Amino acid sequence: MTNHQSIGIVEEQFFTFAQDVPFQLESGATVGPVTLCYETYGALNADHSNAVLILHALSGSAHAAGFHPEDSPSLAGLTDSGGIKPGWWDECIGPGKAFDTDRYFVICSNVLGGCYGSTGPASVNPQTGQPYGLGFPVVTIGDMVRAQTALIDHLGIEQLLCVAGGSMGGMQVLEWAASYPHRVKAAIPLATTARHSPMLIALSEVGRQAIYADPKWNHGDYYAAGQKPDAGLAVARMIGHITYLSEESMHTKFGRRLQERERYGYDFATEFQVESYLKYNGNNFTRRFDANSYLYITKAMDYFDLSERTGSLAVAFAKSTAVKFLIVSFTSDWLYPSYHSKDLVRALTAAGGDVTYLDIQSTWGHDAFLLEVETMTELLGSFLDRLAREESVALPRMAIGY
Amino acid sequence: MTNHQSIGIVEEQFFTFAQDVPFQLESGATVGPVTLCYETYGALNADHSNAVLILHALSGSAHAAGFHPEDSPSLAGLTDSGGIKPGWWDECIGPGKAFDTDRYFVICSNVLGGCYGSTGPASVNPQTGQPYGLGFPVVTIGDMVRAQTALIDHLGIEQLLCVAGGSMGGMQVLEWAASYPHRVKAAIPLATTARHSPMLIALSEVGRQAIYADPKWNHGDYYAAGQKPDAGLAVARMIGHITYLSEESMHTKFGRRLQERERYGYDFATEFQVESYLKYNGNNFTRRFDANSYLYITKAMDYFDLSERTGSLAVAFAKSTAVKFLIVSFTSDWLYPSYHSKDLVRALTAAGGDVTYLDIQSTWGHDAFLLEVETMTELLGSFLDRLAREESVALPRMAIGY
Repeated sequence: MTNHQSIGIVEEQFFTFAQDVPFQLESGATVGPVTLCYETYGALNADHSNAVLILHALSGSAHAAGFHPEDSPSLAGLTDSGGIKPGWWDECIGPGKAFDTDRYFVICSNVLGGCYGSTGPASVNPQTGQPYGLGFPVVTIGDMVRAQTALIDHLGIEQLLCVAGGSMGGMQVLEWAASYPHRVKAAIPLATTARHSPMLIALSEVGRQAIYADPKWNHGDYYAAGQKPDAGLAVARMIGHITYLSEESMHTKFGRRLQERERYGYDFATEFQVESYLKYNGNNFTRRFDANSYLYITKAMDYFDLSERTGSLAVAFAKSTAVKFLIVSFTSDWLYPSYHSKDLVRALTAAGGDVTYLDIQSTWGHDAFLLEVETMTELLGSFLDRLAREESVALPRMAIGY
Repeated sequence: MTNHQSIGIVEEQFFTFAQDVPFQLESGATVGPVTLCYETYGALNADHSNAVLILHALSGSAHAAGFHPEDSPSLAGLTDSGGIKPGWWDECIGPGKAFDTDRYFVICSNVLGGCYGSTGPASVNPQTGQPYGLGFPVVTIGDMVRAQTALIDHLGIEQLLCVAGGSMGGMQVLEWAASYPHRVKAAIPLATTARHSPMLIALSEVGRQAIYADPKWNHGDYYAAGQKPDAGLAVARMIGHITYLSEESMHTKFGRRLQERERYGYDFATEFQVESYLKYNGNNFTRRFDANSYLYITKAMDYFDLSERTGSLAVAFAKSTAVKFLIVSFTSDWLYPSYHSKDLVRALTAAGGDVTYLDIQSTWGHDAFLLEVETMTELLGSFLDRLAREESVALPRMAIGY
């Protein structure tokens, strides 16, 4: 049974740093000041040992759980059934859920380069007074995570109980575990990889090419024009949506069923349900996402290869032996196939790491990490529960009243 | 060992029909006159029993083997090594090859709706004197094959020894076998399906959306403008190229290697080899293919579902029990995964059909049907050889001298 109890109303928060000394990026470039938009759920306990950092995927935001005030006309019996959308991982974050906000202080921040409140290409460049556009420096997963360490410092947290996330969120989890092993007790990378494959790079690049091909993109300089490269971004998003599903989930969700038609129209109107789904999601995405952020974030993912700096994945995790890993892949995920996770398990085992690995039978493709709620709840919940008991993590004083 | 002996110089031929009575399409619309561009290799034997019809895939043409005069400055020792491109299945069609032109009369025609000499959206509509554009009626795989029957009639062939092709070519093979079982002795569908899946429809549709998104497409009316929707068509082709490869072949061909760079540029230039490959092939395609044809042909593929008319695939093949099937799929083909072929084998077996099926171990993905030349040569060659002996197919009188 899915737990529908919501955490309720949450507010975005903002943390700005690198005001005086700019933030140094892996590329050698700098950027500053840097603002991270974040949300927190639950309360920090007395010794600050109950913090869990949630990392979002490509199109995600800091809004992982609960409802924003403007989306929530009534608090009474608030659920997702009313068409009001809660945070992107609401089913796993809340009282009694996998990330139990009665016990843990859960944090989620929008990545550097994003377009949901954190500094990114759509932000105003203080040196020009205009949006950065392509003047924004290319950032890496390493840069995103280093920015997060500043936020975690700001929140007064020495060591996170756990870092968790799927897809690009999982890459950030792995970056935390490899680069800041002393600052995380446990790491939960879901449906992810330690090394973006050529297939993943190819899919990213075609999405970017779709954006470049849109004349309204105008080399990233479109913020003042009042015209955005929506057509290109929609195509990029449609490609993404195909890769998030599996053959089987497509058969279940759509089959060859037609949309609002009894028979073939023999024209180029949208007629199969799967076409309608893609078009709807593609267009919808353009209302909530910045095309330049899409370029920057996919590029960061493409650069991600933890084995590169050290020559081997095992060496990359040599100092992470104290971190407890729960690694999860899904059998029908063809975007981040299980072999990525298995390579990671082998490397961690070779490095003497503490690894639990599950390849979960699911027909939902890459989306499974968000959709297999019962399995995730049981698995992540019991992993965290055991961890918290082993580490004698105290309850927060204010278990209620956010 | 691959046989590099080429069939030599070949010329395109043209057959025009439906001049007086227009050609009736599945949609109910009509089109006419219809021209099919075709090529033949080898010679027809006395009783016209040695004809093999080759069916091409989405981006193919009638030019399946040999060299066009303009591509062939010298006939001496002609091979593919000099950068001169032979027909698309040259490695399997020629003297002593799988489709042995010393024994068989091999025919290949460009599909109806295509842009390589057959009537399609870029052809002039005789009623307007202008290119059809979107005024061209939507055609189906059934229409393409029915047009081919007119060509086969014209060539004086009652029954084809064999129809063979991969991908969309395989769909035409299946259409021949289901709709004209008395006209084919054997059918070789490779890496294909009897029913376009929602995943395949989704991939088609995103390619089409990339074309629609290009302002130069102008609702299909771009022939007079001097500007084609190259950017959109290139993106569509890049998506295609990703789906033709496998994870493993991408690792082998590209890995995470950089192109003309020693280290990351931290910019949006083409830098990974796989990006360069996609860009090159995408751009190249725009010089040789018509964007509207891309729309029409992918739409024809999406409509393809042999089970639809009869309610079941087994019933669709009920009259095809005399046709000998050789069905081949490839283990790493994720575009037309083996289960498509297995479904087909089950249906044919249920219908009492004569089926040989092989799921070939290959790392080349969907492209395997073109790249696994040695395996194809042995398999197809011996299947045809046995068939020709069983059917006492005589050699053509003119086994040499094309």
